[in-house]
Amino acid sequence: MHDKLAGFFRQHQFDAIVGISPVNVLYLTGANILRLSQRLIPERLAMVLWPAEGEPCVITMLQQALVLSQSRVKDIRSYVEFRDLPIKILAEVIRERGLERSRIGIEKRYLAAEYYEQLQQFLPEASFQGCDRQLDLLRAIKTPEEIQLLRQAAVATDNAIAEAYLAAKVGCEEAEVATNMRDAMFAGGADEVNLLWLGAGEHSTEVHHKACSKRLQKGDVIRVDIGGTFRGYYSDLARTAVVGKPTAAQAEAYKIVWDVMEEVISTIRPGIPAKRLFEIYRDRFQKRGLAVPIPHVGHSLGIKLHEEPILMQYEDETLKPNMVLEVELVHIANGALYHNEDQIVVTGSGYEIVSRTRDWSQVLSIV
Amino acid sequence: MHDKLAGFFRQHQFDAIVGISPVNVLYLTGANILRLSQRLIPERLAMVLWPAEGEPCVITMLQQALVLSQSRVKDIRSYVEFRDLPIKILAEVIRERGLERSRIGIEKRYLAAEYYEQLQQFLPEASFQGCDRQLDLLRAIKTPEEIQLLRQAAVATDNAIAEAYLAAKVGCEEAEVATNMRDAMFAGGADEVNLLWLGAGEHSTEVHHKACSKRLQKGDVIRVDIGGTFRGYYSDLARTAVVGKPTAAQAEAYKIVWDVMEEVISTIRPGIPAKRLFEIYRDRFQKRGLAVPIPHVGHSLGIKLHEEPILMQYEDETLKPNMVLEVELVHIANGALYHNEDQIVVTGSGYEIVSRTRDWSQVLSIV
Repeated sequence: MHDKLAGFFRQHQFDAIVGISPVNVLYLTGANILRLSQRLIPERLAMVLWPAEGEPCVITMLQQALVLSQSRVKDIRSYVEFRDLPIKILAEVIRERGLERSRIGIEKRYLAAEYYEQLQQFLPEASFQGCDRQLDLLRAIKTPEEIQLLRQAAVATDNAIAEAYLAAKVGCEEAEVATNMRDAMFAGGADEVNLLWLGAGEHSTEVHHKACSKRLQKGDVIRVDIGGTFRGYYSDLARTAVVGKPTAAQAEAYKIVWDVMEEVISTIRPGIPAKRLFEIYRDRFQKRGLAVPIPHVGHSLGIKLHEEPILMQYEDETLKPNMVLEVELVHIANGALYHNEDQIVVTGSGYEIVSRTRDWSQVLSIV
Repeated sequence: MHDKLAGFFRQHQFDAIVGISPVNVLYLTGANILRLSQRLIPERLAMVLWPAEGEPCVITMLQQALVLSQSRVKDIRSYVEFRDLPIKILAEVIRERGLERSRIGIEKRYLAAEYYEQLQQFLPEASFQGCDRQLDLLRAIKTPEEIQLLRQAAVATDNAIAEAYLAAKVGCEEAEVATNMRDAMFAGGADEVNLLWLGAGEHSTEVHHKACSKRLQKGDVIRVDIGGTFRGYYSDLARTAVVGKPTAAQAEAYKIVWDVMEEVISTIRPGIPAKRLFEIYRDRFQKRGLAVPIPHVGHSLGIKLHEEPILMQYEDETLKPNMVLEVELVHIANGALYHNEDQIVVTGSGYEIVSRTRDWSQVLSIV
């Protein structure tokens, strides 16, 4: 992290940055415990000050020993909840480091207005600049360890989907399929299952459908979009299956999704604009006279579910080695939603699909 | 909600409020789907404008139909992700309602600095005031439906703890006990299990310990702090047990926790200052020469895990009928942490403990 940030500071001219979101606090400190705690009780601010020169400092309510056991940062300042004002402690550390008149990057898309006003009052001579996008782009290039974690998460998730689909039968409730899938996620190492949208038949078209007591019937299309976190890193995959033998129309709808996905994925290599991937999806669909129901064809992922670059038309970034992308493609046909999503690592010269534990090129049939 | 807010607007003199946090958007709109979506992808702002006069309006990325199916609010403005600036749409609705020069309550402890600056630029003549605490106190008084939801969540959680503790044996891994407990939570209706800190022996003293491969040994104290969400509402309970027959010292440590908990709980009735409960815990412990390891003796809960009033010394609020409190008490003795937590409803004249599905007055023995 010190090496990565040395380049970051050279490029962006900050004298220091303050990480305050659960995402960047985990990224900068390595302490997942802080991320969980921030999500559950947001008032328990956890922050990291990282100066361009000198060592970083964490400000947290949690015990020093607990943070030290997870974090690479050694200077931990604990505060007492209710009694202390965490932003005041941050301001004190900034003064202690002689940075009270410097240019400090903060997460303006996360730091709440009230805390920002406190910070400006405590440090009236400092210049605070948003550094959200810069940190997003820093996180976009993954380390080998991060790629390994994300790959394991994708494999565990694909296994969980396949296991639950293959165990399903005509007459099963949606909720049973979802429960089996969730159990398989935890058995595969997930710490949390953060999203699990599963629906059959007309429910497949509800983007965020919660699996219910509807029973699977022959002819239903069943779709799942599922993601968990594994040691702080997300998985996110979608797979579509058919209950019974697929009709010709169902096989055709699935083939459209698959073929366009394959074309999008095969375009991936360093130097390609991220928006190009969306344009291929949009153009191929429009040429066939099909609707494009969502304004992207995927996104990166990591500690955040949707990370930069997003594969959409307003994205300025180009693909770079060691980005980890989710390519996902949605198609509505005959009252059902077809949705496939895979995880792809951008390599030095092309790409590697890391999320397919079985052959998904033909639609899976649940019997 | 219209009735509740009529009183709120009379009391606080806002011309409108804007809900923007996942908590208050669920509270005001009734749409849990928006809360889940905001948590997963925070940039997908979901907001509700509630004017003192006239009907509320929701601004969201999700499809109108999905929001309408869950929400009581009928005016839904959808935006297209990446293309539209959600804060601009909010500002347009505020103008449309003739509120561009009025006093508008916003959540300054949630709304990020960048969005707040956008809002001020779009509406330079409006006066924005923080309304976080006022909304916290509005949510503190629960409706009968909310109390029923919270009671069911507490009962399901207590059942899950008891089931997993009673199924545990000497030689089990911590992780097995945790898995059984989580499965029982889902079987009991939880939509998510948001916290599950379980540790035995020396792990019991790690406040946020993740259950691991450590095997239960005779003489271990085992402690769990577990909470889930049920249709958007939290549960949060803690229970301590002993592996094997409790020693005299273990029974004594448990009895201290239990007796002081009982004294704290028996004090609960409308009109009592919330901080009084903490003072009883602190004074009883200090009189015995014992450490008070945490600066509160519990908190309210609802859509948020920790809601107002917090049972701590700096809390100004008094207890009122239909508040739902968690009383939790922590005691460290002989290298182990004893922790009990119960859910209590403040009634018209006293209290009702709603979270005990079995007699926990004696320490449970795992054999």
